[in-house]
Parts: sequence; structure tokens; C-alpha cells
Amino acid sequence: MNQLTIRRSGLLWAMVCLYAGVLAQPPRGPLVVSPQINPDKSVTFRYLAPSAKDVKLSAQFEKAPVPMTKDEQGIWSVTVGPVKPDIYPYSFQVDGVTAMDPANVAFFPNERFKASLVDIPGDTPLVHALRDVPHGTISYEYYPSIDGTTGSLVVYTPPGYDQSPSKKYPVFYLISGTTDTEETFFKVGKTNLILDNLIAGGKAKPMIIVMPYGNIAARVAEQNGGSKPADPTVRDGADAVKRANDFATDLVSNVIPYTEKNYRAIPGRNNRAIGGFSRGGGQTLRTAFGHMDKFAWVCSYSSYLSPDEMERSYKPIVANPANTNKQFKLLWVSVGSDDFLYKGTAEFMDYLKAHTIQFRSMVTDGGHTWMNVKKYVAATTPLLFQP
Amino acid sequence: MNQLTIRRSGLLWAMVCLYAGVLAQPPRGPLVVSPQINPDKSVTFRYLAPSAKDVKLSAQFEKAPVPMTKDEQGIWSVTVGPVKPDIYPYSFQVDGVTAMDPANVAFFPNERFKASLVDIPGDTPLVHALRDVPHGTISYEYYPSIDGTTGSLVVYTPPGYDQSPSKKYPVFYLISGTTDTEETFFKVGKTNLILDNLIAGGKAKPMIIVMPYGNIAARVAEQNGGSKPADPTVRDGADAVKRANDFATDLVSNVIPYTEKNYRAIPGRNNRAIGGFSRGGGQTLRTAFGHMDKFAWVCSYSSYLSPDEMERSYKPIVANPANTNKQFKLLWVSVGSDDFLYKGTAEFMDYLKAHTIQFRSMVTDGGHTWMNVKKYVAATTPLLFQP
Repeated sequence: MNQLTIRRSGLLWAMVCLYAGVLAQPPRGPLVVSPQINPDKSVTFRYLAPSAKDVKLSAQFEKAPVPMTKDEQGIWSVTVGPVKPDIYPYSFQVDGVTAMDPANVAFFPNERFKASLVDIPGDTPLVHALRDVPHGTISYEYYPSIDGTTGSLVVYTPPGYDQSPSKKYPVFYLISGTTDTEETFFKVGKTNLILDNLIAGGKAKPMIIVMPYGNIAARVAEQNGGSKPADPTVRDGADAVKRANDFATDLVSNVIPYTEKNYRAIPGRNNRAIGGFSRGGGQTLRTAFGHMDKFAWVCSYSSYLSPDEMERSYKPIVANPANTNKQFKLLWVSVGSDDFLYKGTAEFMDYLKAHTIQFRSMVTDGGHTWMNVKKYVAATTPLLFQP
Repeated sequence: MNQLTIRRSGLLWAMVCLYAGVLAQPPRGPLVVSPQINPDKSVTFRYLAPSAKDVKLSAQFEKAPVPMTKDEQGIWSVTVGPVKPDIYPYSFQVDGVTAMDPANVAFFPNERFKASLVDIPGDTPLVHALRDVPHGTISYEYYPSIDGTTGSLVVYTPPGYDQSPSKKYPVFYLISGTTDTEETFFKVGKTNLILDNLIAGGKAKPMIIVMPYGNIAARVAEQNGGSKPADPTVRDGADAVKRANDFATDLVSNVIPYTEKNYRAIPGRNNRAIGGFSRGGGQTLRTAFGHMDKFAWVCSYSSYLSPDEMERSYKPIVANPANTNKQFKLLWVSVGSDDFLYKGTAEFMDYLKAHTIQFRSMVTDGGHTWMNVKKYVAATTPLLFQP
């Protein structure tokens, strides 16, 4: 027993097992500390599995799974790094089975995988660091959505919102990616903390951020008893077009009215921004291009529309570039150079250029990750709602 | 490929894998639907693991793990029940490794285990069902806590809170159990939905509910760089007493002032209730008995203080029962008959009776579970703040 492990009492260990729904009580063991961030930015991961044959760490900062070694207590561990400060998803591969880190509360909300999160602080605070500045509030809301369903929103209100009851704010509608949920921009993207820090530094205007759930078809199926859910990873075909249209309709007809009724939002397109990552970036472009009267600020993170779809569905956008350039106060496109959507995004930028549509762009290192999403949020929110 | 499985595209499956931090890409496979609640209240669970040798379902409604069987696609499944409508934690045991359900977004926030949640609806809506009634809001807040740390709170405000800017409300401080987090009463206890339903039915007074994190020592260690965390399962000894005192101090000196500054809370002990489950029940009793001037309504769910501790630390409570009975408008003690804390709780009730301390009690079927917590919340909140 070393300083990082403490025997637990039998009675309360039984309780933990009962909580877990693990009725076949596992052997009592040491209390595992994981992840442990060391002063040199290396990180030690630990996983208790006395009977396992092979345990590896799968982490988004490693190119391949990293073997872990077992000690005499049955705790597998590995120290990796130093790791570049950021937030990374990780999981354990335990005899080939993916498991979250039982000792870590921080998790990645997602429909299709379960990953834990490790947040390695910088020597100077990162853009998302919890700092001693005034904090906004994250709220979970229900709203009446399409097909008689009840939708959920995660809403950020800036510091001082409750103390200034007559002040009104512009609104950024921010949509997460395929298999993500309405919680992902909060729990993984740390959008609330990024805005707290930018607002405290005078770098972004105080704004409300409304984060909807992107996979409306899944919710309709769940609440209305459908047994055949839509596959969220299928982008093409009639189903995908219907889903994209349903999302835009719900956002424009339900989410915006709910927000403007229940929050002190300044109405009008000049005070509405829309942005999103991955599938949410596609939903952003489709909703903005299909409802020019609704949003003047548009941010696509790691996503694009194909020239084919632009020609087919959004011809007015490119047919009159002078009008488009006047209407959009910001059209933003960003992508990582290793993103598997890089090529399509580069083509989209070329297409916009060829049609003299003005946009701002950012190409970063890295791939289709939430490390990059945080960079894009931090780069774009200072641009929104500026004169 | 049956109606419940749909091929995913290669490109977007790669994205899902990258999200997961699973850089060794698993074989592409069918999209798994799990859990699936059938019309007869049986539930089908599915888990994709083509290479696994043995997969079992561990669920809190089953006495023992239930073997699952594999189909030709590598999907393990089992249909169990009919199951009594309620919310239950469950996980899969995959070759002995505990794994959450990758296909299910609903999870149990906890420091020490990772479990998914299945919510089986009743033929008539259960007390926590999402119904078409006015909904309150859940907010995540930061507050200045002890030792220079930043604490987090989950706060429920009742329906109409934002629409009635001059109305003030009483406050229920509600503390979750050992290894739980400040999210557990929201995500597992569905306290917000229970209150929405009770308030809509005129059965509970509109109130604010403030849900703090119980394991302050862990947060102090995390934020202040301590490498030796407190074992949350150790209840006795000097460390445990210090932790209990720290919690009470933080609640009284930091959480209450923060709440009363930032929410429209009616001040004074008659407008403050305190309650909690398991360790949170102990913290409830200690904080209420140690700060008689702060709370008039006290709810202990599945917890107790020992006669020894009462004699040692809270002698004034029993020394003057007339005063105690006058001060507390509600002292509530409830427990499940199968709870491993049943005996201690029964002794506590006997002790209170012997000292003519008035209290209300409820003994339910079942054990130390969140199924019981929901019952206790639904039974006690209608009693709070009534004349």
C-alpha cells in the first residue's frame, strides 16, 4: 500500500458495489487515483484489474495504444508524456474491451462511445482554464420541439446576466457534431469557461449561447416510440436531407422563439450567430444559407457543403455575391490540416473564392478533434456581434 | 442486417473512432440499439463485441448478472423482464471487465464506477416522468469555496422563476451520497422533473433546490495540487470528522450566502431545508444539528447518526426535546428495509423516540438505491415550507 492507495472499509465498499449495480461483488481493493497529472506534465493513468491479461491506454494524444503494466495489487499503470497541455479523450483497452476510467468523473457525452477526459493545465492558463474571473451560468432547459416532442437545450448566460435584469444580449446558436449531445460543447468544449475568460479580458462581447441537440430524428424516435432509429452517421440520401431540414425547421421555428421568449435576447439577424462542429457545421451552413433572414454571423468548424449541394440547394448564395457579402457580417470556415474532412473543406473554400464570397478561414494543425474545436470557438467568439 | 441495425459509412465511422480516442480502429460493424424497452416492459440490452468470450448484463433490477448471447454480427443481447417501471443503473461485464453501454447516453455521475441508466416508463407516468407541464431550470454554478477553491453547484429553479422577477422562494439544500457528484440528484434522481410534476399538481410549493458536491476534500486536493486524496469511503477517524466539519462550514459560510446573493431566496431558517442521501444524509444531520439557527426542515434519506455521536457532538438536541421539537418543523428519517444501513437507521429512530424527539419516518422496500431516493424526494418535498 503506497501513499496513493487507501484501504476502504468493507461496509462502504459494499455500498459502492450496490450503487454500481454490480451485484456480484468484485474483490475489495485499493482506491485507485487516475489520472494523476505530474509537475512535468507527464500523466499517470491507473486501472484496477487483477485478472486482466492485457491493458492499454488509448488516448487522443498518443498515436497508438500504450501498454500498461500491473503491480502486485492488480493496478495497471503507465506514465506518458510530458503531454502538451489541453483536454484529451482517453479510455482503457482491457483485454480488448473499451472501458472508461472508473476513477475519473470527467466524461465525454456521446451517443456511440464512452470516453473519459484528462485536462492537463498549462503553465499559463489555457483559454478554457477555470480562472478567478466572473463566471456565467450553464442552464438545462426543455422546449417544445417538432412532432410533439420535448427538446433539450444547454444555455450559457454571461457573467452578470442575473444582476442586470434590463440588459439584453445577442445569441450564438452552437451545434455539436455527429454522435455528440447538447452537453458536448459544455463538458468537452468548455465553451462556458472560454467565454468567461474572453469576456473578463474584454475580448468578446457578453452573449447568450444556446446549444441544441443535433440528432432530432433520434429524439423523435425515442419519445414517439419509433423502434427504428436514424443512423446518425449516414449523411446522404433522402433521410439525411429530411433530417437536415427538420433540424433547421426546429431551430428557426422552435429554438429561436423559445430563446427569445425565455431569455433577454436581442432579436433580429444582426444579433444572431450560428456555428457548429462537424455535422453541426453542415447544419450551420444549411440553416444559415436556407434562412438568410435569421443569422448574420456564421461559423463552420471542421465541416463544409459540397459544390454539388451548393448548386442544387443554395444557388442564391452564390448567384448574387454582392448581396451575400453584405448580408453576412461573418462567414467563417476552419479545419485541421490532418482532419479527414480537410479536402472537402478546402474545396468548399475554393468554391466560395471562385464565387467571390467573402469568408474568414483558419487552418490549424491536428485533426477532427475537440482540441481544435476549442481553438475555433476562442478565435470566432471575439469576432461576433462587433460593429 | 435486421431493422435495428444499419450499416454506417466508412468515412464517418472513422470519425467516431477518432472521437473516441480509439486510434486502433475497431472493425466496422452494425449500429447497435440499446437499451430497447419493449411494449410489455421487458428490456433488450445489446453490446457489440465480436471477439468477447463471455458477456453478462449487471442491472440493479436483477439479483445476479444475466448471461447474454452473441449473434452472427457479434452483437451480444438479452431480453429481461418485464421490469417494474423505474430508473435503474446497469453495466455490461465483458470477459470480466465492467463497461458502460456505448449506445446509451444516460449515465450515472460517480467518482468510482461507471454505469449506464435505463428508464422504464410506467403505464401511468411515474413521479419523475418528463410530462407536458411547465418545467423549471437546472443551472450549473461556480461559487467561492473553502481554502481558495472554486466549488460547483447544480441549482433547480422552479417553473416561472424567470417570469416572476420579484417573487422570492424558499431553498432546499440537497446533498448526494458517497462517490456521487453534484450532478447525481439531477441525472439519476431526476429531482427537477419530480418537482416540476409535484408543483404542476399543486402538491409542492415552488422552491429553489441547491445541490452541492459532498466530497470537498477531493476538490481541495485536486485544485490545490494535493497528491493524496481523501478516501471518501472512510467515515470514522479524525479525517472523517474534519471532512464533515469542512462540509458544514462550506455550506453555511459559502453556499448559503452565494445562493442568497445570486438567487431570489427568502432568508431565514424557516425558509431553508436540508436533505441528503447516504453520506449526504449524515452531512444533513450534522449540519442541521450543529447549526440550529440555519435550517427548520431536515430530511435524512438512508442514513443516520450513531447514539455515540449524538451524545458526543449533539447533546443539546436531545437535552431539551421541547426546544428541538419546536425548532424543527420537519425531521424526516427514511430507509429501505433491505438497506445495509437499515439497522443503524432503526437504532437512530429508536434513539430519537427514547428522547421524545419528534420525527416522521418512512420505511420502504428495497435497498440503498436511487430508486428509493426518488421515493423519498417525492414524499418529503410536499411537506417542506408548508404552514
